[in-house]
Amino acid sequence: MNELTISLDAQSSVPLYEQIYKYIKNDIQDGGLPFGKRLPSTRKLAKFLQISRTTVDMAYEQLVSEGYIEAVPYKGYYVCELEGLYRIRPGQPSGVSAKRPEQVSYAYDFSPNGVDLSSFPHNAWRKLSKAVLMEENRQLFGLGDPQGESELRGTIAAYLHQARGVSAKPEQIVIGAGNDFLLLFLCSMLGTGQKIAMESPTYRKAYDLFANLSNEVCIVGMDEAGMRIDELEKSGACLAYVMPSHQFPLGTVMPVGRRMQLLSWAEAAPERYIIEDDYDSEFRYKGKPIPSLQGYDRGERVIYIGTFSRSIAPAIRVSYMVLPKSLMQLYRERGRKISSTVSRVDQMIIAGFLNEGYYERHLNRMRAVYKGRHDALLEEMKAFRQIGHISGENAGVHILFTFTNGMTEMEAVQTAAREGVAVYGLSRYYVGSGKQAESSTILLGYANLSEEEIRNAARLLARAWL
Amino acid sequence: MNELTISLDAQSSVPLYEQIYKYIKNDIQDGGLPFGKRLPSTRKLAKFLQISRTTVDMAYEQLVSEGYIEAVPYKGYYVCELEGLYRIRPGQPSGVSAKRPEQVSYAYDFSPNGVDLSSFPHNAWRKLSKAVLMEENRQLFGLGDPQGESELRGTIAAYLHQARGVSAKPEQIVIGAGNDFLLLFLCSMLGTGQKIAMESPTYRKAYDLFANLSNEVCIVGMDEAGMRIDELEKSGACLAYVMPSHQFPLGTVMPVGRRMQLLSWAEAAPERYIIEDDYDSEFRYKGKPIPSLQGYDRGERVIYIGTFSRSIAPAIRVSYMVLPKSLMQLYRERGRKISSTVSRVDQMIIAGFLNEGYYERHLNRMRAVYKGRHDALLEEMKAFRQIGHISGENAGVHILFTFTNGMTEMEAVQTAAREGVAVYGLSRYYVGSGKQAESSTILLGYANLSEEEIRNAARLLARAWL
Repeated sequence: MNELTISLDAQSSVPLYEQIYKYIKNDIQDGGLPFGKRLPSTRKLAKFLQISRTTVDMAYEQLVSEGYIEAVPYKGYYVCELEGLYRIRPGQPSGVSAKRPEQVSYAYDFSPNGVDLSSFPHNAWRKLSKAVLMEENRQLFGLGDPQGESELRGTIAAYLHQARGVSAKPEQIVIGAGNDFLLLFLCSMLGTGQKIAMESPTYRKAYDLFANLSNEVCIVGMDEAGMRIDELEKSGACLAYVMPSHQFPLGTVMPVGRRMQLLSWAEAAPERYIIEDDYDSEFRYKGKPIPSLQGYDRGERVIYIGTFSRSIAPAIRVSYMVLPKSLMQLYRERGRKISSTVSRVDQMIIAGFLNEGYYERHLNRMRAVYKGRHDALLEEMKAFRQIGHISGENAGVHILFTFTNGMTEMEAVQTAAREGVAVYGLSRYYVGSGKQAESSTILLGYANLSEEEIRNAARLLARAWL
Repeated sequence: MNELTISLDAQSSVPLYEQIYKYIKNDIQDGGLPFGKRLPSTRKLAKFLQISRTTVDMAYEQLVSEGYIEAVPYKGYYVCELEGLYRIRPGQPSGVSAKRPEQVSYAYDFSPNGVDLSSFPHNAWRKLSKAVLMEENRQLFGLGDPQGESELRGTIAAYLHQARGVSAKPEQIVIGAGNDFLLLFLCSMLGTGQKIAMESPTYRKAYDLFANLSNEVCIVGMDEAGMRIDELEKSGACLAYVMPSHQFPLGTVMPVGRRMQLLSWAEAAPERYIIEDDYDSEFRYKGKPIPSLQGYDRGERVIYIGTFSRSIAPAIRVSYMVLPKSLMQLYRERGRKISSTVSRVDQMIIAGFLNEGYYERHLNRMRAVYKGRHDALLEEMKAFRQIGHISGENAGVHILFTFTNGMTEMEAVQTAAREGVAVYGLSRYYVGSGKQAESSTILLGYANLSEEEIRNAARLLARAWL
């Protein structure tokens, strides 16, 4: 074959070389130019098409780069063998239907995962963001420390010491894009196939994540002090996932005696660790904050996790993990290989937010806002005291209400829904073997409802339940 | 016991209730107040200390919350049992020494992972960032779609179609904080314990990550077209990790014939998938960009991963994954449970960067900058043609140089280091069973060196090697 009848369009915005490339590529894909076929030489084709030889060279080079043709020295260009069985021609993509569950719209939503978005500190954030981007610091756009910026880690260490009694040096802190990521990261560092003890009900995402990563999750019973140590002992687990300051969703505070037993359990074998998820300890409405479990840990057994997503805004994907010194060697060997998941710009904004006192003021303000909503909800719930009782009410941003009049969780959720109010059954937080057949408890989150909305919603709940 | 001899300091900034709380807590921790001991009633202690009863109530309530004492109705407050064996008293924290390897400082660093930081589009970024934060859109600070903002996914789908020939609907795209995260995420979604085929040398972090997560990684041989399909077939792997447009670190482009074979391999069994890591396809200096493998995929077998970290700046932790339709059900069941790792603010900035044409201009500028450096380096390397040859030079931001005069990789690295120039041995990218005893190839990355720096560095390399 010495020529190719290509009709070129000199007026087209597509360069000539690309028109030639596309024509030959299509011909090869269609089988018009079969395997082994020799193409005209660039000189001949250029002459035939009356264009410059460089243009044909460029087209052929691209075809060689992509593997459609090959250049055989002193012989010419030949069509390569493509996998015969594979249909190279574009098919009609079939539609992907998202099949999301239908969204019911509620007038009032007592979601336990709410955050008051109207309180986001816009001005401070904008000011800090501007200042960070103004710095013209080219290093700011480099990859940065996989562990997180040392300035931010120092700031967090000081904050955790003062606010949570956590004892950590900056080098023990790892910054990550959210708690889900940090748990994924931790599993990848410790290796999967671990036996992890959890309570039930618990933080569902953590359960799913551990289970997805082929860890064996064993459900350990709880009493009023939290995870039962005798059952934990028997389970054979080497990791215990707990939320001692405020168990989610039950709101249990683990008393100091149980904390000591848990630490003793962990110290009894070298491979045992406790994961302390301190997800919302910032919000407590009675007395001082409950200190962290990590602060009591003398045996370097506690992996502490906290987040700014709850205390500032969910869109702020910044969490932190404090590794015990006993895991630092493993971290250096395996953990440091994973690049940081938080942009350095965001890290510097958060560091400024903490250092310049914005965070403390923001927390004080949010505590007052949430306390007002908390008190309004408890006041309204007095109307329901004949049909159930409240628990988990001293901290966090939700309370639990357990029906004692025989109403099931499902009835409560459905009758509330009919009035346009979303409440959440406790059973969705039961996991694995800890699943319960029936529950008569619901969660009422109040973070994203104003006091007035809470009062209006309570009137609707009275219509539904009383 | 009816009284506690607490010396209160009314002038202190510590509230009186907290002074009482701390005193009793310390006494319990020291054993001064043993298990079962009854505390004085709040009335008696208030009278004895001549303070208000509310103050004592507050102190006792905090001690109850933390589990140091318990209230027995009609009887009073008793000290709880703490775990006897556990030392509750703060110990002296032993220092953590970071033990980082000593940093040698180089005059010129040919790092293959460099990015030209001075080209970061500061002004555009600042402008977009300001505009996004100005919107006062409170929803912007909510949690957002775990998959990423639909606006950004739409923008990426259009970009990938046009620039990479990737065929994807926005609902197939998942946004994540960097490629490392996306690979972690993918493993958690697919389940660990998979058999994954990789080349060697390869992208080391991906290898470490797969291996850490208890996947079985089998090294499959390569020829000049990339991963060998016969070996892949024999390996029994169900996942193949490849970089068809520009293999790292070798720079191989997988020709279309091999691509077809790879796709046929994947279609031969329902559990087989190809992970296409298209990490730096933006930079090609000869002809058009090589289209993605994903664009040829008719069997929904290719998981495509790309990133803005290389093309904009490493500090921008935004990558994207295109899932084949065959994995969408699994994603909805398992993947959507993991919250997004990229802040919505950052997602909106990137979307604006692409939509308003900044990205295209930035890429054109970077291609020109890198092409200049690439050409300067190739020009300088002509001086070394007696002692070796260049490969992998048409794309990316590094070239390879293989010594043919008997010089080993280690000698080359060490002699260059003595002249203050960092070059990188190929052997660091060999993984698992694919390790090689000796290499005489080095990588020279040029992204973060100016043309003048490249010329100066080459003079030093000539002193070292010639």
